[in-house]
Amino acid sequence: MPAKGAEIHVNLPHGDPATASPLTRPADVCVVGGGVIGLSIAWRAAALGLSVTVADPSPASGATHAAAGMLAPVSEVTYTEEPLLRLGLASLARWPAFAAELTEDSGVDVDHRADGTLAVAFGADDLAALGELADFMAKLSLPAERLTGRECRRLEPMLAPGVRGGVLAADDAWVDPRRVAEALLAAAGRRGVRLVREQVSAVVVDGDAATGVRLAGGGTIAAGQVVLANGAWAGTLDGLPAGVLPPVRPVKGQIMRLRGAPGFLGHCVRGVVHGSSAYLVPRRDGEVVLGASQEEMGFDTRVTAGGLYELLRDARELVPGVTELEVTGTVAGLRPGTPDNIPVIGRASLPGLLFATGHHRGGVLLAPLTADHVAAELTGGHPGDDPPVGRICSPARFTGRPAHGDD
Amino acid sequence: MPAKGAEIHVNLPHGDPATASPLTRPADVCVVGGGVIGLSIAWRAAALGLSVTVADPSPASGATHAAAGMLAPVSEVTYTEEPLLRLGLASLARWPAFAAELTEDSGVDVDHRADGTLAVAFGADDLAALGELADFMAKLSLPAERLTGRECRRLEPMLAPGVRGGVLAADDAWVDPRRVAEALLAAAGRRGVRLVREQVSAVVVDGDAATGVRLAGGGTIAAGQVVLANGAWAGTLDGLPAGVLPPVRPVKGQIMRLRGAPGFLGHCVRGVVHGSSAYLVPRRDGEVVLGASQEEMGFDTRVTAGGLYELLRDARELVPGVTELEVTGTVAGLRPGTPDNIPVIGRASLPGLLFATGHHRGGVLLAPLTADHVAAELTGGHPGDDPPVGRICSPARFTGRPAHGDD
Repeated sequence: MPAKGAEIHVNLPHGDPATASPLTRPADVCVVGGGVIGLSIAWRAAALGLSVTVADPSPASGATHAAAGMLAPVSEVTYTEEPLLRLGLASLARWPAFAAELTEDSGVDVDHRADGTLAVAFGADDLAALGELADFMAKLSLPAERLTGRECRRLEPMLAPGVRGGVLAADDAWVDPRRVAEALLAAAGRRGVRLVREQVSAVVVDGDAATGVRLAGGGTIAAGQVVLANGAWAGTLDGLPAGVLPPVRPVKGQIMRLRGAPGFLGHCVRGVVHGSSAYLVPRRDGEVVLGASQEEMGFDTRVTAGGLYELLRDARELVPGVTELEVTGTVAGLRPGTPDNIPVIGRASLPGLLFATGHHRGGVLLAPLTADHVAAELTGGHPGDDPPVGRICSPARFTGRPAHGDD
Repeated sequence: MPAKGAEIHVNLPHGDPATASPLTRPADVCVVGGGVIGLSIAWRAAALGLSVTVADPSPASGATHAAAGMLAPVSEVTYTEEPLLRLGLASLARWPAFAAELTEDSGVDVDHRADGTLAVAFGADDLAALGELADFMAKLSLPAERLTGRECRRLEPMLAPGVRGGVLAADDAWVDPRRVAEALLAAAGRRGVRLVREQVSAVVVDGDAATGVRLAGGGTIAAGQVVLANGAWAGTLDGLPAGVLPPVRPVKGQIMRLRGAPGFLGHCVRGVVHGSSAYLVPRRDGEVVLGASQEEMGFDTRVTAGGLYELLRDARELVPGVTELEVTGTVAGLRPGTPDNIPVIGRASLPGLLFATGHHRGGVLLAPLTADHVAAELTGGHPGDDPPVGRICSPARFTGRPAHGDD
């Protein structure tokens, strides 16, 4: 669908006449949600010439704020999720250019590093599983090197003495999601994206089409097209006919940030400890991020004693020296999960409405691919078939209704 | 020494003429340090008619802020520290009246509870040690009831199933130190105590006597008598002849605060876990405080991954249900330790100078006794001999110099 001109009409609820008067400005797209997905779409769409408004009461404060930023499509998926793997690999390939353009547009360095993940094992079973991962990576022509425990410790001297072996996934990369969000806010702003710091309560439907959003404070934003990129909250908006919204649910994750010295770790380090996957992500300035729990707790963002306990317990088994580091922050975020762990990206059955949510653990990784795909959809371009994002991520697989335009 | 009139002379370093002009107001005492000890002294001294100034850049932000507030003199001491025990029991007896007067003077409820400590044991050795504690308490005519594991869990249903037995110390009490500090600030203010929110860098000595303090910003506070109640920092002040300052060192403690439901625990719960003593202190509003590490780290107030890990590990072994609770805060504080674990309270060898520091883990417990003793010293009254605070806590035991006035 080609972009069409639209009016932004904001009725602010409070009495300041300077801001309460209706604003009229042509706008093509309203993106609901200012996390890494929503901001990436807004930035890309604006770069293609669309006028874009992003609505979020507190941009980059949700799952983006709690993400570690690993760009590790292989080690993050299971073997049965090959479509997701294809998306991840395609988006990983776009990250270097995405990061470079973003830095150029914003002046913000996003701490993009491609120094690899060292996945380690303590027991024979873990070691065998890592060996299978290495074989799988080799089949995909991804570099994967098996290492002995001694070789692992040579690469990462802070590793626990009990590490028996590991696999170095040299192509794995990571970014600092908070810097990415900061960069996206700046870059989108320079491209003319308008940010409305208000909560969206509903999609406005006029006749058969989405024509904007209603704000919790009472105002509205009118737009030619509406993109729901509000993560775990995508399923909670009012105003839409039954069956239009995808089944997105919150999957809680708790992380902890530590202050290390630069060089404390040289790679992302991960391992299976006490049956769950734990990781440490080092930033260039020495910060170390410990992640992450996966909890089905509904819309609960409490940092809990048990969550922190498990993060600390697992991290110190991998890298005992973390105990000496200062704790600089803890946060819980809600990942948008879907029944098949694959995102929901593309046109809804309702004209004028698109989805870009359900990215679960992969929002940062999949942002470049998602943004390019959605921006192409918004401008009426062809999103491309490699990988076929529109098919893999189609909302219709859950709603049973074809996307508008697929008929 | 009788209180004498003195001038407060504050030369503020920055240019605001309204505050930079010298203030002249009669004052008798300058208390260095606005924690629970310094504020208690200031409040009591002001109630006795003295004019008092407290100097602290950030009152109640040190050890007081990180204290759990247990008033548990028996379970906190070892058997070899009988003088300290005498101080603790005497101060515990003063707490109910102290709390009542404080609330009356301030309007602030300090959450004083006297519901007892339940000390629990997992192993036979722990159980035997608890039995000895119970015998010791009985010898002191303090109520101590031995309980089976089942009886413990009947009293505290959240206790771990592995608890084999315990001792209920029914006289143990606790307060919320942050509320105590808030109450003291209000009560002292109502009694006319003046608060100077600046860092003290030195004691001013004129001739042979302390005559005030120098502020880090360059000003001075002149006072007839100076009380050093600045905790772990008491030994760091400039300006005094060698041998006057007591050997106080920082002993780091890290605590964690959790949000529980009111009634989550009905008693203080403590136990020896992994060789160190862990405790949980419940507040009336449901907050649960986990404490506390004891670390010799110098002036280091970093909250560390290892510190939090041990707090969480030990607390969940005692009360597994803490894992579900929200973490509302973590903090590290520095207790003022002395070589014999006994405070330093009373007149220094230098006329006009007094100490009230070195309270280590007992600052909150010992505040009423310390304040009454020091206030009596400041007004030239007789501090009393039961217990003989002046003898037990004399600075002379470290400095080898008799207190001024003891000659």
